[in-house]
Amino acid sequence: MEYVLPLQRLIEKFCTLRGVGYKTAVRYAFSVLDMSEEEAAEFAGAIISAKQDIHPCEVCGNLSDGEECSICSDAARDKGVICVVEDTRAVMALEKVKEFNGLYHVLGGVISPMNNVGPEQLRIKELLSRISTGDVRELIIATNPNIEGETTAMYISKLVAPLGIKVTRLAYGVPVGADLEYADEMTLMRALDGRRQI
Amino acid sequence: MEYVLPLQRLIEKFCTLRGVGYKTAVRYAFSVLDMSEEEAAEFAGAIISAKQDIHPCEVCGNLSDGEECSICSDAARDKGVICVVEDTRAVMALEKVKEFNGLYHVLGGVISPMNNVGPEQLRIKELLSRISTGDVRELIIATNPNIEGETTAMYISKLVAPLGIKVTRLAYGVPVGADLEYADEMTLMRALDGRRQI
Repeated sequence: MEYVLPLQRLIEKFCTLRGVGYKTAVRYAFSVLDMSEEEAAEFAGAIISAKQDIHPCEVCGNLSDGEECSICSDAARDKGVICVVEDTRAVMALEKVKEFNGLYHVLGGVISPMNNVGPEQLRIKELLSRISTGDVRELIIATNPNIEGETTAMYISKLVAPLGIKVTRLAYGVPVGADLEYADEMTLMRALDGRRQI
Repeated sequence: MEYVLPLQRLIEKFCTLRGVGYKTAVRYAFSVLDMSEEEAAEFAGAIISAKQDIHPCEVCGNLSDGEECSICSDAARDKGVICVVEDTRAVMALEKVKEFNGLYHVLGGVISPMNNVGPEQLRIKELLSRISTGDVRELIIATNPNIEGETTAMYISKLVAPLGIKVTRLAYGVPVGADLEYADEMTLMRALDGRRQI
């Protein structure tokens, strides 16, 4: 043991954060030692509060501090379009764009036989029951552009097909600002497939 | 406000850690959401405990969870040599080498007129009173190799000179494994000055 026990324990806790190695954890632990007692107490309180006061929205599964999230309870949003995403991070990413004005549905993952995740582990039942209200015109499937995201998108689109709802998928292509030289073949192929007249 | 309030607050707290930007703070905050309630409670508890249970050692000023730190209370260490450092991080760095078997004295900073830090803000009085016991043979001054560290080293060595104690300074030179091409002129000059016969 290198450090005094309370410090060592704090370092180990910081190590459990995504992307934090030992040296970084040591730096953070010393940052905490440099805080006032009050600041440290606020920090600890914020951790507890984030776990206790944030719940999934009852409607869409997005992060919320009430029963419905701020998006679902916003009367100005178009309830006819639902964007289906893997997780709440995707909601944040899409909200940043300020382009989409419909609602979301957070699946809580993707179909992945490798990780023992089947459709029944995802919030697909809840999605179907939202659609069954009859208000929904379009489902935009915005799962990640990889095999599992693709599989999940196909699964949902087949499930929804008989209901006569328009199902769309985010466009594939080269990212804006990227250099073609560094784009992978799969992306370039999709970009060619999806070319548009200008 | 982008995120639900409890999450936003947690993100802001993570931003106060040294070297953490907004995007990184968001990642950490989501890591906390992924923890179990129990893990989050332990994390929060570790922050509180690190602040409450760690105090400066009464003798040397190093981090300790008791009255004396583990180094000062170790009977096997040579009480005749004191290594004077700026902060507890330097103690950790030197301890890792497992070469030094004496005691430490943490100044709690360096003399820096720019930052309004004078000798009276540092634990120099405490150092003199430790020396006055008569057990100390050598003082190794290991403040950082920059102007302020150098000034502090000079100040202490002049103060201690009349007491007839050997005062030494860490050797300057090129770091092991470094490339001379990238060494700065000051370091190369010092490395030449301090050259030794082989």
